[in-house]
Amino acid sequence: MTAASLSELAPPTRLLLGPGPSPVSPRVLRALGTPPLGHLDPAFLVIMNELQAALREVFRTRNPFTIAVSGTGSAGMEAALVNLLEPGDTAVVGVNGVFGARLADIAGRCGAKVVKLEAPWGEVFTPAEVEEALAREGNVKLVALVHAETSTGARQPMEGMGDLCRRHGALLVLDTVTSLGGLPVEVDAWGVDACYSGTQKCLSCPPGLAPLTFSPRAVEVLKSRKQKVQSWYLDMSMIADYWTEGKRAYHHTAPINMVYALREALRLVLEEGLDARFARHARHSAALLAGLAALGCRPVAAEGRRLPSLNCIFAPDGVAEAPVRKAVLEEFDIEIGGGLGPLAGKVWRIGLMGDGARQGSVVAVLSALEQVLARQGKVSRPGVALEAALRVYEG
Amino acid sequence: MTAASLSELAPPTRLLLGPGPSPVSPRVLRALGTPPLGHLDPAFLVIMNELQAALREVFRTRNPFTIAVSGTGSAGMEAALVNLLEPGDTAVVGVNGVFGARLADIAGRCGAKVVKLEAPWGEVFTPAEVEEALAREGNVKLVALVHAETSTGARQPMEGMGDLCRRHGALLVLDTVTSLGGLPVEVDAWGVDACYSGTQKCLSCPPGLAPLTFSPRAVEVLKSRKQKVQSWYLDMSMIADYWTEGKRAYHHTAPINMVYALREALRLVLEEGLDARFARHARHSAALLAGLAALGCRPVAAEGRRLPSLNCIFAPDGVAEAPVRKAVLEEFDIEIGGGLGPLAGKVWRIGLMGDGARQGSVVAVLSALEQVLARQGKVSRPGVALEAALRVYEG
Repeated sequence: MTAASLSELAPPTRLLLGPGPSPVSPRVLRALGTPPLGHLDPAFLVIMNELQAALREVFRTRNPFTIAVSGTGSAGMEAALVNLLEPGDTAVVGVNGVFGARLADIAGRCGAKVVKLEAPWGEVFTPAEVEEALAREGNVKLVALVHAETSTGARQPMEGMGDLCRRHGALLVLDTVTSLGGLPVEVDAWGVDACYSGTQKCLSCPPGLAPLTFSPRAVEVLKSRKQKVQSWYLDMSMIADYWTEGKRAYHHTAPINMVYALREALRLVLEEGLDARFARHARHSAALLAGLAALGCRPVAAEGRRLPSLNCIFAPDGVAEAPVRKAVLEEFDIEIGGGLGPLAGKVWRIGLMGDGARQGSVVAVLSALEQVLARQGKVSRPGVALEAALRVYEG
Repeated sequence: MTAASLSELAPPTRLLLGPGPSPVSPRVLRALGTPPLGHLDPAFLVIMNELQAALREVFRTRNPFTIAVSGTGSAGMEAALVNLLEPGDTAVVGVNGVFGARLADIAGRCGAKVVKLEAPWGEVFTPAEVEEALAREGNVKLVALVHAETSTGARQPMEGMGDLCRRHGALLVLDTVTSLGGLPVEVDAWGVDACYSGTQKCLSCPPGLAPLTFSPRAVEVLKSRKQKVQSWYLDMSMIADYWTEGKRAYHHTAPINMVYALREALRLVLEEGLDARFARHARHSAALLAGLAALGCRPVAAEGRRLPSLNCIFAPDGVAEAPVRKAVLEEFDIEIGGGLGPLAGKVWRIGLMGDGARQGSVVAVLSALEQVLARQGKVSRPGVALEAALRVYEG
């Protein structure tokens, strides 16, 4: 390595329709590239206040403790668990994909007794299943569920979950990495006690921060811990003092430029309006799925349980998924995702998130898939996918 | 909060001469604002390889395990300790400022027996002191020292430290957050086993990543752990697979745009050349200290033990430091730092890091300080600070 061997940064331009990151608006990129302030500059503290207020809107919560964790979405997951669990606590974790499994792994590293609720990948949990586990185990500290399972495209219905957790004295932790800003997330109405997300999905911001909100109940649990939080970096009892107006105690240096970018991304979300944004995501997902159906691709998750932001579909019968995905990337500069775990080699994961949820994306990816599949003789009639999608837009 | 209440991002333009973040080159900001690739895109994996090669140059190491942790400098600190320590291990930690204390705090959270070596703030440790602790304790897992103590401006000499740790079978962990890229850091020559830094100091990149390198010895310790690493997010046994060519297993989404920015920042470091960069930092620090001396400001750390990157000086006798610092920020748009812990209210911390280490910064901050102090009748003769600084530049 010498200076000469490191050439100018010149990445290809890709249309990001995988499981994240999603396309980023030029306005967000411009905010990201703004010269930084110091993390204790009074002008930066105003920006933090604004960011917090915007995050509360997007999470639909009044929780004072609403911040952006200095890491990617998984840091938000870890922050939720390490602050609320202590060794010996019991955690009931819904495992129906990669991210539920990750929650269980982290809860175990906290020294908790982990009770896994398991469902086949692509399926979700009923309130009765959760309640049965709570009643059976007794004295459960928290229930952790994945609202938007990025590995399967399944949407976990939340009706009733908050109430039953409260009845059993358990906190409710919810992963909204792939839902926040793309479909309804109702932290207060659902009775969620700890909710985290990532920036690089439906918020259309680069990866690097994890929005996180704690209910007053969760803050109470944090404050009454017997032991120190095992992570110093993610210790919210200290970080809260940096994010609380009037305190602003130095903990660690915030990722200033990412805060700028997330603020601008949230500004775009609020300008559009949450409900309009959710409708947009739903509309383009419906068109995409219609087009994919015409190509012989069946969704993994059942109707009514699907994420509009992450469309996980089986590759057509007799089609090897990886070479198609590679061709779509290399020839068309479009990124789509493959499967993880038991779905590896079987599915594509097509994200329509934030700025990616638009007709241009739907048309581009369907056209690319159709052309690649046509070479294998797997398309019934040229244009079949686009026509099906356009019917949804017209209808 | 409504969309209308969130106005355009318009931070003031500050000259960042505090303890970090430091000024960022327009080239780095441009790289930061480049549209992201996916974190598993083959084109991004090439960029990761390039980043790793550049980091090895800057750390002066051949360690294959050399990466950027997805968090700020303190995440690098935590990553070093949680991966190498297990409950019951003994850690000898040098505490002579805020960051040594933080190392001790984190080591305790790992369940380690923490043996604190203590020295007054501003002072450093001798090899004899470290060796005495190693001999006394026996079976020490690691020694952790702070090369560049940002809270005091003290530089820890490293000669002999690696050898004595090896003789006693201990790993050597070194914090170079405020030194990497600004003064010599010799990971291999010093026998350092785990070394971490931040991006927002002498590398002149925004905060958000933590360069980290592990020696083969440290990797061996990581591989032979009895227990899982307590942090999933910072578990280097899994993260290594993402950063290893040919594996690239998904762990978490990397902060793509920060990787772009750090790559460009390292490119600038290598273009300048490390030795030239170190000489530049030393030269401007000498000029600054000469000017400050003419204003009655004495450095906290002794001659030969000072960081050129972080100049920590006592405010002149009879001067309240905070109002001066506030005036320098508000009237001159220059950020300088105050003191922490026992130095709070007593010192200023003036960073000359990366792009901030230039004559323009030195002249600007001396001029601002002189004007504010002159109002209090604390300046012997107008221009005295600048003259002293210029004599160093001319000499």
